[in-house]
Amino acid sequence: MLRPLLFLTFAWYAAQAARAADPPLMPLPVKVETASGRLVVDGSFSVAATGYTDLRLEAALNRFAARISRQTGIPMLAARPPNASRATLRVECAGVPSGLGAQDPSLGEDESYQLDVAPEGARLKAATVAGALHGLETFAQLVGPGAEGFRVPAIHIEDSPRFPWRGLMLDVSRHWMPVEVVERNLDAMAAVKLNVFHWHLSDDQGFRAESRRFPRLQQLGSDGDFYTQAEIRHVVAYARDRGIRVVPEFDMPGHTTSWLVGYPELASAPGPYSIGRTWGEFDGTMDPTREETYEFLDAFLGEMTQLFPDPYFHIGGDEVNGRQWGQSASIQAFAKAHNLEGASGLQAYFNQRIQKLLQKYGKIMVGWDEILRPDLPADTVVQSWRGQASLAEAASKGYRGILSAGYYLDHLRPASYHYGIDPLAGAAQKLTPELASRILGGEACMWAEYANAETVDSRIWPRAAVIAERLWSPKEAAADGTSMYARMEAVSRVLEWTGVRHRANYGPMLDRLAAGRPAEPLRVLADACEAQGLGTRARAMKYTSLTPLNRLVDAARPESESVRALEQAASKLEIAPLREQFIRWAANDARFQSLAKDNALLAELKPLSKDLSALGVAGLRILTYLEGRRPAPKTWLSAQAKELDRMLKPRNEVVLAGVRPVKLLLDELARRRK
Amino acid sequence: MLRPLLFLTFAWYAAQAARAADPPLMPLPVKVETASGRLVVDGSFSVAATGYTDLRLEAALNRFAARISRQTGIPMLAARPPNASRATLRVECAGVPSGLGAQDPSLGEDESYQLDVAPEGARLKAATVAGALHGLETFAQLVGPGAEGFRVPAIHIEDSPRFPWRGLMLDVSRHWMPVEVVERNLDAMAAVKLNVFHWHLSDDQGFRAESRRFPRLQQLGSDGDFYTQAEIRHVVAYARDRGIRVVPEFDMPGHTTSWLVGYPELASAPGPYSIGRTWGEFDGTMDPTREETYEFLDAFLGEMTQLFPDPYFHIGGDEVNGRQWGQSASIQAFAKAHNLEGASGLQAYFNQRIQKLLQKYGKIMVGWDEILRPDLPADTVVQSWRGQASLAEAASKGYRGILSAGYYLDHLRPASYHYGIDPLAGAAQKLTPELASRILGGEACMWAEYANAETVDSRIWPRAAVIAERLWSPKEAAADGTSMYARMEAVSRVLEWTGVRHRANYGPMLDRLAAGRPAEPLRVLADACEAQGLGTRARAMKYTSLTPLNRLVDAARPESESVRALEQAASKLEIAPLREQFIRWAANDARFQSLAKDNALLAELKPLSKDLSALGVAGLRILTYLEGRRPAPKTWLSAQAKELDRMLKPRNEVVLAGVRPVKLLLDELARRRK
Repeated sequence: MLRPLLFLTFAWYAAQAARAADPPLMPLPVKVETASGRLVVDGSFSVAATGYTDLRLEAALNRFAARISRQTGIPMLAARPPNASRATLRVECAGVPSGLGAQDPSLGEDESYQLDVAPEGARLKAATVAGALHGLETFAQLVGPGAEGFRVPAIHIEDSPRFPWRGLMLDVSRHWMPVEVVERNLDAMAAVKLNVFHWHLSDDQGFRAESRRFPRLQQLGSDGDFYTQAEIRHVVAYARDRGIRVVPEFDMPGHTTSWLVGYPELASAPGPYSIGRTWGEFDGTMDPTREETYEFLDAFLGEMTQLFPDPYFHIGGDEVNGRQWGQSASIQAFAKAHNLEGASGLQAYFNQRIQKLLQKYGKIMVGWDEILRPDLPADTVVQSWRGQASLAEAASKGYRGILSAGYYLDHLRPASYHYGIDPLAGAAQKLTPELASRILGGEACMWAEYANAETVDSRIWPRAAVIAERLWSPKEAAADGTSMYARMEAVSRVLEWTGVRHRANYGPMLDRLAAGRPAEPLRVLADACEAQGLGTRARAMKYTSLTPLNRLVDAARPESESVRALEQAASKLEIAPLREQFIRWAANDARFQSLAKDNALLAELKPLSKDLSALGVAGLRILTYLEGRRPAPKTWLSAQAKELDRMLKPRNEVVLAGVRPVKLLLDELARRRK
Repeated sequence: MLRPLLFLTFAWYAAQAARAADPPLMPLPVKVETASGRLVVDGSFSVAATGYTDLRLEAALNRFAARISRQTGIPMLAARPPNASRATLRVECAGVPSGLGAQDPSLGEDESYQLDVAPEGARLKAATVAGALHGLETFAQLVGPGAEGFRVPAIHIEDSPRFPWRGLMLDVSRHWMPVEVVERNLDAMAAVKLNVFHWHLSDDQGFRAESRRFPRLQQLGSDGDFYTQAEIRHVVAYARDRGIRVVPEFDMPGHTTSWLVGYPELASAPGPYSIGRTWGEFDGTMDPTREETYEFLDAFLGEMTQLFPDPYFHIGGDEVNGRQWGQSASIQAFAKAHNLEGASGLQAYFNQRIQKLLQKYGKIMVGWDEILRPDLPADTVVQSWRGQASLAEAASKGYRGILSAGYYLDHLRPASYHYGIDPLAGAAQKLTPELASRILGGEACMWAEYANAETVDSRIWPRAAVIAERLWSPKEAAADGTSMYARMEAVSRVLEWTGVRHRANYGPMLDRLAAGRPAEPLRVLADACEAQGLGTRARAMKYTSLTPLNRLVDAARPESESVRALEQAASKLEIAPLREQFIRWAANDARFQSLAKDNALLAELKPLSKDLSALGVAGLRILTYLEGRRPAPKTWLSAQAKELDRMLKPRNEVVLAGVRPVKLLLDELARRRK
């Protein structure tokens, strides 16, 4: 038993507590009470299950002990003690509710936990292993160096998720993501309590799962880059161990070019087909009118559904351009004969047929917005890339839904943008509680047109942690953007210990660009830049899946931490760090130009670098005006404002984010003039 | 056929060519001729064997193609073309000399290669797969971004090693090194043409190999951290694929405490024994007088020699303190009866017995200096931690030897120090060519008292590359330290693509110290510091193998690249970068103190940080004097000199290396006064 803690009267609820000094937790728990004192974490630290246990929990405790050891650098020989009751952290798991599988995570299971940390020890209580897993991650986020060594502050936490479906979709088709990329991202997902891995396994650019029934799918449709069935089973088990459901997606009847390379007979127009190398909507579409198509898919789904234990199965169903259907006389005749109106009618027919196949194999169908048509069974789940209105409509028609609009990580929007998107906002706000409960949650989406195995982690993390918080924490709790960024920065570092390389890949990519020479001038430039997402890149040049992703835009972050710090300094008029940075920028171009000599990868950045130095010079002059008594000349002010606006326009698919703090200072200067 | 190249009249030999503008190759080849033009490396790049080939070469070509793709970021779908004669890089391997195994690398095999790169294509010629592997690594080092994209400059290289035995010893006993640490270091070794992995598998602190005959060795002697036999076979195959021989070391009869935990009957004094947690010479020593000892070792060596195909087998034999032998009446009686003088006599007897066992199993014995006693067979190899004199003595007695004195990486000496150590210098210089040829080469040694899986890479790399050059390149070629450092910095970055984490582990370790907050002020301090090695750390505090290695000294590098750049700037009186850095240092302490608040790991560094800022202030003042006309006051100069000397003393097991450039400037100032 833990001795009763004398909690401070300052007990706070997360709703009121969004301050930068908060425990660096993401997602924020439902209820947090801090107390005085701390639990020491040293070489004698240990963890054990004192209640229900099973292989999954035991494996989790082993991983947890190794993780704490890695995170702190403290060797822990006896982290799993023989005598459970003496463990530093005791995990009391009530066990698995009867009727549910002991191992597989399931939608809607009890994920709550309660964590009590006192100087004498810590106790984690949970109804299920899933809850225990979440509590362990919370504990891990709390471990850090304090005044007397590593410790966890004394704390009482009660926690449970707001939404039961909190996912990350990963596109492994546009660019191939090897198993280790999936593994490390599953570890990171678990760290922020995401519980659905939506695996986008096929698209025009690659068919990534081994089929033994139809081996030409992967043999001809993947460039040799696909997951074997053994690897798929491994990933499913790996995810399950971390409390994560795996929902596979085989996108159909559109986005199927890679299937058609090996099986052109599935298509609505004669082949041959070749693997897609560009993006967008391709014409190749399955023929919804031939029985052979359904025979193929029956056998295919029969095989694939056996690999994935989760009841939910995603069939995509998005972006069918209908061109092949429109051009085929036989398909048009079929549509007419069956009273199917246009492409959407044909697709609805297709979906109904697929749904029946899935039902036969015990699966519940999930699809994108487009699948929503009458006659689908009520258990169908709609994933919305359109928005809350689409979800609300689905809910009022009896369907369940998950939100992805606003959660597209590949657009590289700021974390604050995603943070502002709520599944129950907008049209969904007006739903009755019963209808609202049909909105199960959401999924962050990582489409991979402009990301590969090297860069994808930095496109997902840490921003996905903010979406995880939006989906887990009480709506009111997760409101304050300032606390959000401070906590996101902390969690970004904790995530490093899960193995994701969102921070680690920066250095090597800059080194590559710098041709083996010290990359510091490039780093100064890259730190001041932010990578642009899908829209800008699609307009910038004709990308294919074979275009190298080795430029500044691929190394640069969607949001610059150091620019954010400068913005904060500028808003508080903290002059010293600003001046120091401006001096560095001003001096940087000469060094950058020397580094960029005879370097094709850096050549495009020369004007950008010149602007950064000009920005530094302008910043220094603004500081001089701010400190002096003389007001800045009006014409100079307006010329500067114009120049900054020019500099803020995306170039080289990045934005010179360093302009923003200078603009803040210039605005302040203009204000003073008035 | 390649078209004949019009080589520039400026053809240089490596001996004359040690300039910073050289191709960034390490080790330097025997002969390099540059030509005009370049070979483009883009998505169409391919490689193939056009002569002899085997599984090992094919695997190497696959790895090479993947490596070039990773290093450049260019996807290469067809890197292994179906039509070999059209490959961008054609590998003509003459094949394996008859009588040698096709797969296992062997001491003294032909490692030479010739590489010709022209705009139309490249050709690599080698007598053996070993030579081809080296040539591929040279090519990989030459790939970099040029004025028009990735390319290799046109070049003609003829190359072969100076010494046949070029090793890295890794101690996996003091701290456990998992298989992946070994793997990535083998990849890095191959990148700099090291060809012997000396695996120090047992010591007082851990027995790291699975024995099925004597399972208590690993069960009780390793804390559960050992290599299974399957893993050992995997590592041997992994090394073989990379042209690297594996020489295992089981240190005996001393340094055997970990054996004695499970088998105390081997010892010269009654047990029980427990795993060593501290360093130094332990008393636990095998009993050389009991036949049961040799029966055990006969069975043990019979088992272990089957795991390692290389003919050389290392029995350690160092640092027997002889205490147990001296205290045992029966052992003393045995020594007297057999005319064995003291501990060294007993050890010689032991070695002879072991040598006969090894001979029975077809192995040639290798041991440290101490094994060198008359009556050992002439094929014995002596590894010297004592120096060239010891090697020369061994050679003149007919033995072969390898040098490790001066190559102890764990002492964290500068690369230039190791670079200055030549196996054939000193006493070895006077040997006849025939005797000198008995000096087979050398081995860099990585003892692991103060390194673990997280930190070991940065203790080995990039400095081991310099030792690799010393052992590969012609003596005269590898002479110029300036070129050496420039090339080492380039190769350090190339090594990142092999997977070693010598650069990658810096950020996470600083992040850990900074408790999840932006670590920049700590990075500024760490960049100005250099970690101290074994000697300083042994004096600093009582370390055990359970002491966390998570402090600044563990994150900091043995040599600071940025300080080296400042020293170069100071020696050329390039004021701008110095001023910028001094300003940063001067401002850093305030930020550091804020970061260090309530942080036990950073608390010890507060005085160091204060000194860094004082150093910045002093540096700025020196620059002012250097730029001005007024000479610096004499008293101020001497006070500063004294202060800098104080600051140069190691503290917190690091040295404030940033003092050195300031000292250079101060010396210049003092010179001007005269």
